[in-house]
Amino acid sequence: MFVSRSFTRNARCTLFNSPRFYSVEVSSRRVFSPAFSEPQQPSMQTLCPGPRSLQMQKKLDQYMDARHIVTVPDYTKSVGNYLIDVDGNVFLDCFAQISSIALGYNNPELISLAKSDKHAVAFVNRPCTAMFPPHDYVETMKEAFMNIAPAGMDEVIPMTSGSEAVENGIKLAMLSHAHLKRGGREFNKDELESVMNNLAPGSPDVAVLSFAGAFHGRTTGALSLTRSKAIHKLDISSFKWPQAPFPQLKYPLHKFEKENKAEEDRCIQEVDNILSSHKAPIVAMIIEPVQAEGGDKHASPEFFRRLRDVAAKRKVAFIVDEVQTGFGASGEWWAHSKWQLEKAPDMVLFSKKSQSAGIYLPRRMRAPFTYQIFNTWYGEPVKTQIMAEMVKIVERDNLLAQVKTVGQQLLHGLETLAEKYPDTLHSARGNGTFCAIDAHDAATRDRLVSIARNNGLMIGSSGATAIRLRPMLTFAPEHVKIFLNLFEKCVQEL
Amino acid sequence: MFVSRSFTRNARCTLFNSPRFYSVEVSSRRVFSPAFSEPQQPSMQTLCPGPRSLQMQKKLDQYMDARHIVTVPDYTKSVGNYLIDVDGNVFLDCFAQISSIALGYNNPELISLAKSDKHAVAFVNRPCTAMFPPHDYVETMKEAFMNIAPAGMDEVIPMTSGSEAVENGIKLAMLSHAHLKRGGREFNKDELESVMNNLAPGSPDVAVLSFAGAFHGRTTGALSLTRSKAIHKLDISSFKWPQAPFPQLKYPLHKFEKENKAEEDRCIQEVDNILSSHKAPIVAMIIEPVQAEGGDKHASPEFFRRLRDVAAKRKVAFIVDEVQTGFGASGEWWAHSKWQLEKAPDMVLFSKKSQSAGIYLPRRMRAPFTYQIFNTWYGEPVKTQIMAEMVKIVERDNLLAQVKTVGQQLLHGLETLAEKYPDTLHSARGNGTFCAIDAHDAATRDRLVSIARNNGLMIGSSGATAIRLRPMLTFAPEHVKIFLNLFEKCVQEL
Repeated sequence: MFVSRSFTRNARCTLFNSPRFYSVEVSSRRVFSPAFSEPQQPSMQTLCPGPRSLQMQKKLDQYMDARHIVTVPDYTKSVGNYLIDVDGNVFLDCFAQISSIALGYNNPELISLAKSDKHAVAFVNRPCTAMFPPHDYVETMKEAFMNIAPAGMDEVIPMTSGSEAVENGIKLAMLSHAHLKRGGREFNKDELESVMNNLAPGSPDVAVLSFAGAFHGRTTGALSLTRSKAIHKLDISSFKWPQAPFPQLKYPLHKFEKENKAEEDRCIQEVDNILSSHKAPIVAMIIEPVQAEGGDKHASPEFFRRLRDVAAKRKVAFIVDEVQTGFGASGEWWAHSKWQLEKAPDMVLFSKKSQSAGIYLPRRMRAPFTYQIFNTWYGEPVKTQIMAEMVKIVERDNLLAQVKTVGQQLLHGLETLAEKYPDTLHSARGNGTFCAIDAHDAATRDRLVSIARNNGLMIGSSGATAIRLRPMLTFAPEHVKIFLNLFEKCVQEL
Repeated sequence: MFVSRSFTRNARCTLFNSPRFYSVEVSSRRVFSPAFSEPQQPSMQTLCPGPRSLQMQKKLDQYMDARHIVTVPDYTKSVGNYLIDVDGNVFLDCFAQISSIALGYNNPELISLAKSDKHAVAFVNRPCTAMFPPHDYVETMKEAFMNIAPAGMDEVIPMTSGSEAVENGIKLAMLSHAHLKRGGREFNKDELESVMNNLAPGSPDVAVLSFAGAFHGRTTGALSLTRSKAIHKLDISSFKWPQAPFPQLKYPLHKFEKENKAEEDRCIQEVDNILSSHKAPIVAMIIEPVQAEGGDKHASPEFFRRLRDVAAKRKVAFIVDEVQTGFGASGEWWAHSKWQLEKAPDMVLFSKKSQSAGIYLPRRMRAPFTYQIFNTWYGEPVKTQIMAEMVKIVERDNLLAQVKTVGQQLLHGLETLAEKYPDTLHSARGNGTFCAIDAHDAATRDRLVSIARNNGLMIGSSGATAIRLRPMLTFAPEHVKIFLNLFEKCVQEL
């Protein structure tokens, strides 16, 4: 599967021929790396999924619910921006495992990390990081989390998934709210007893505000904040928390400035109304810089600045959910940094591409008492290590600058397609490479996604009618060209 | 840090001198392994935590809430049942990262797995396993999950943590309940609209029953089921779900058979009362085979059998939370298998020592529709791989049989101490090596834990006054001897 090569200390070697940024600093020991370079373009042997994938799906269905399978990849063969499946199909991957691969399949530097002693020790001795952190955790945390911390964020609570980050973020807002309200007095008997029965005053009914169309995860607290699709929520009990409207903007933004401004005004006003009138105290609001799962809905930096001001005015924690937008997809480490907030968020949540999940917070938001925010694993050191390594690579290779350039090319291409095929496509929009375009109806969108996959473009859908693109940070100009050419052919094939 | 050794194909080599079961089958390539064997006994250079740990705690506190730190280990030096910290202190680890290390620190076979190509590829290409499962996932799932599946369990929903397993387990019970109630008709307009506002009928108010003293995790749904300590729950909103009493048995069990039977009768009756009278329909009950965090509370197999019958009679899903008891600690793969249920549970949850987390379920419990139970990562293939490898090692080395033997020795030793020091200790109890003993009050317990740690015994606490032992599956008779001798000295030091 792999060939091994020897490198001399600090030799700088190009392990892949294309794209250009696949280069690697390696130390003086044996490094395994895939024996091939990135394909020049997608190529399909079968429809997607092919017969071997279907056969494996059937086998897998003995042991798990295999109905969600798109195709069965061979990750030993996949490389860079290309996903290769067991039927020999080669996809240009613009979906990246629901936006969760940052630097290409089998990135040689990450493979090298994964084969290091440091990684092996961290992997087999997974600690309770809060009680027994590894001796080198200060450095790893600094390199992974702190070197790219959003402005105003002092520390991190490591978690294992986006949902856990959301759950603990809203818990932290509740803790902070109640602690402040109690004004330093100790818990009383009534609180200590009622809480064990899930009742007030120990367990008070407070609320968290989210936005129509939002996605914040699927555990029951997070799911109460999620408003993207009914099927995610139906039949599940939820907290009776309110939702505010999220601006429904018209694209391209520059053509509809006035209408969009009015729409954002309406939403801000409605948020303020809810905050001032909701019967249970609202302790936090949570928002995505771009609503992803909900249909790639954007809003202006001005909207988010005003929202942050409303939150501050109403003393409501302002939580930014960067699980999908974060770690570079916008061309900045964190999409919300483009808002240029005067007052930083109260928390920033991350997961997916960073491999590590967690909560960034200012020191003042730390839980008042120990064991209020805690769990067995409290993150995972191997994930902190890989995040640290990825941060170094992204910085060294200027990948954020590339995302900006490539994002503009991609958006321009999508806008051109929307103009050329107005009966099929509309509303091209993007933030970095976090791009989308709508079909005129769900059936057309679904057909287009299917045709694209059959033509070697792995793309996703979001909301009712959107096609979402979530390429990796290694998506280069040549990939944009391939994507746009092929995607246009797919539109013509409709 | 490591020395490398070469092995010939299939050579069977003892990499550690002690204990005996550290032996390993390795293939014909270079394998890294720690260059030392397990220490003969604990040895302390400083108090716990020592000055270097305290210094690192201070540094770590810049980046995270470091108040929970017990000591800062050096995992590159820790080996087998011994945790070694940065101050050079050598602990016999009877706590195992809150019961989450199965086969010893730096287990050479797991290190070997962690350095394999298979592992590296799975680690750097973390997939959306539900949509894009790896080509070898059928085999890995079979070896990890299915070869040791509890009776009656057909399939698995992989998750990333115990809390996520609990959250999705209760969601599944809600889905199943509502689907059955709807009798096959499609969702109506009222349901589809109300659900987006978190309101009935789309999001109905149903309940899940848990037990006083239970611990099921810390995300808001799971936390609504957790009843172990007020500080975990205070100030956090919760679902208004009911709790039933868990039997408060007297130990040793054989001396109090009559009283304990009466106590269990009382609890069963109360469960039935709650199920028949609670205003919101109860769709599931969830229970630990031994209440762990809540203070190591045991109940008889008869109690659990009757509980399962009550659940079946009332048509309530019976969920067994084996997050802490599972994966061998009881001397069986799953502690609930000792109950010899006639009707299998509706779900079994696992995490911690198995490294993989998830839900075992019978096929009939599968979610009615796609994307009802789903998330980005849906488990993690490297965790499935390590679970598969651990299953093989445990089976080959008969570690479950060893856990039974060692557990009896440990329990006998604790009972002897309880008899010898009746003014300090009482209520020794155990299930496999899942053992505990109570001090007469919390202050004594806390002091004893502290003295033990200062003497090189890493132990934990649970509930108000219990000391909990959670050794690894590799805990051997010689470790029991060392533990009992040292622990007695600690009691004398009080």
